Amino acid sequence: MIRFHEKDPYAPIQYSYEVSRILYSGRSKFQEIVVLENPFFGRMMILDGVVQITEKDEFFYHEMLVHVVLNAHPDPKTVVVIGGGDGGTVREVLKHKSVEKVYFIEIDEEVINISKKFFPSVASGTRDRRVEIKCMDGAEFVKSRRHDIDLVIVDSTDIVGFAKTLFTRKFFSSIRDCLTPDGMFVTLSESLHFHRDIVVKVQKTLQSVFPVVDLYTAPLATYAGNWWTFSVGSLGLNPREIRRKDRISTKYYSPEIHRTCFLPEDMYDRLLKGKLGW
Amino acid sequence: MIRFHEKDPYAPIQYSYEVSRILYSGRSKFQEIVVLENPFFGRMMILDGVVQITEKDEFFYHEMLVHVVLNAHPDPKTVVVIGGGDGGTVREVLKHKSVEKVYFIEIDEEVINISKKFFPSVASGTRDRRVEIKCMDGAEFVKSRRHDIDLVIVDSTDIVGFAKTLFTRKFFSSIRDCLTPDGMFVTLSESLHFHRDIVVKVQKTLQSVFPVVDLYTAPLATYAGNWWTFSVGSLGLNPREIRRKDRISTKYYSPEIHRTCFLPEDMYDRLLKGKLGW
Repeated sequence: MIRFHEKDPYAPIQYSYEVSRILYSGRSKFQEIVVLENPFFGRMMILDGVVQITEKDEFFYHEMLVHVVLNAHPDPKTVVVIGGGDGGTVREVLKHKSVEKVYFIEIDEEVINISKKFFPSVASGTRDRRVEIKCMDGAEFVKSRRHDIDLVIVDSTDIVGFAKTLFTRKFFSSIRDCLTPDGMFVTLSESLHFHRDIVVKVQKTLQSVFPVVDLYTAPLATYAGNWWTFSVGSLGLNPREIRRKDRISTKYYSPEIHRTCFLPEDMYDRLLKGKLGW
Repeated sequence: MIRFHEKDPYAPIQYSYEVSRILYSGRSKFQEIVVLENPFFGRMMILDGVVQITEKDEFFYHEMLVHVVLNAHPDPKTVVVIGGGDGGTVREVLKHKSVEKVYFIEIDEEVINISKKFFPSVASGTRDRRVEIKCMDGAEFVKSRRHDIDLVIVDSTDIVGFAKTLFTRKFFSSIRDCLTPDGMFVTLSESLHFHRDIVVKVQKTLQSVFPVVDLYTAPLATYAGNWWTFSVGSLGLNPREIRRKDRISTKYYSPEIHRTCFLPEDMYDRLLKGKLGW
């Protein structure tokens, strides 16, 4: 049996997957891109040795990254998605009818092309007339805008390598300055089991920039550590509150998941104070 | 680097761990027992090639297996723990002052002895005067009791091999018949990501025996599939309700976790009807 062993030097458990077929293997200007097939997860996209999406379970991550802030905002019209070249995040954003414009900023055009070819149902939103694709650095795009974006969503690779710049105080400040007064920002922030130091660092950096900061989680099978976190920075609105009523079609996210996915306040306090006891 | 590759033929992702030291390796009458040390998780106990507990994260599983039903019951006095030879489940049960008697039924005495030696903080409760250890088949013990047990907790290995008898209608019926009118039963029931068919089967078998059946989850890093489920059967009381006020010392479990750990009703319905869409 051929196996793919994930190359995540920061994960204390190494994950490996059976490979039924290798569909693509190549190198873009930025990273190594592999598409393979697994009997359980279907097609999988792997960037620099780390699993990014699988056909079977991508919706957990994409729904949870998108719908919490989209439903916490009273009327999201203009949304920026940074990264997420596979298109899954953009697909979820477009489910919201209030959205008039999505700036889809992916530095690596090759990821978009590979996804269109091998993951058509994930990349499905990229042809929508509301979407403007820009293959450039997300930090540069954000700096060019001023108080006219309702939501910014960062869907990057792990917080190592070239994605690191998307987790600095400087970048978070540029995001704050591009947002409208009800604006919110959400980003992945790694696993509470495996990368608690990173989670805390992202939260504290956000707190130095945004008046409202929060943290929610979702159970993801194919991201190392699984108990995956999402960090929110808001200019004022509480992201725990659902402000919109139109129901969107989802498989995991629901209003009840929205209400229960945030870290309990007591656990959140202990996390930030380094007093979890584990 | 020496690595331990978990031998779980039912998991679509294989997990592997760095080994700093092998502390014990032997075979009991029932299974192969290994204790090893990992730089991140500390000591780990492995039965027949599958990770059972690690020093670092055992409390997630033990707290969640125990405190939901112990706090949903108005006054638990007599508790039966089947399996859980490491002692972690008994340790958590003993935190509840109302508990007067714990029958600790572990078929493999060797697991208890190995845990006392290598995991003293996990096995700590086994010497408490309220605990009566019986090295026998849990099904046999349960059949010998009649309406005098408040709670039964099954803490077995995965639902394969010799643990399979602990998930039959016959066994669940024996449990129902040993319980007092407020009695409840809880068991692990595998991962919603990896073993959904098993989860549904356990739930449906429980429904054929208990009038109230429910399902809750916890994020566990070292059990394959991570989004781990616990199945409850109750003679009448709703396990979602907290009926006790004394605070116990825990690291993960809390009243808020209790209120949010159950599957949202809509998702639960779709799960049982095979309509999750994933």
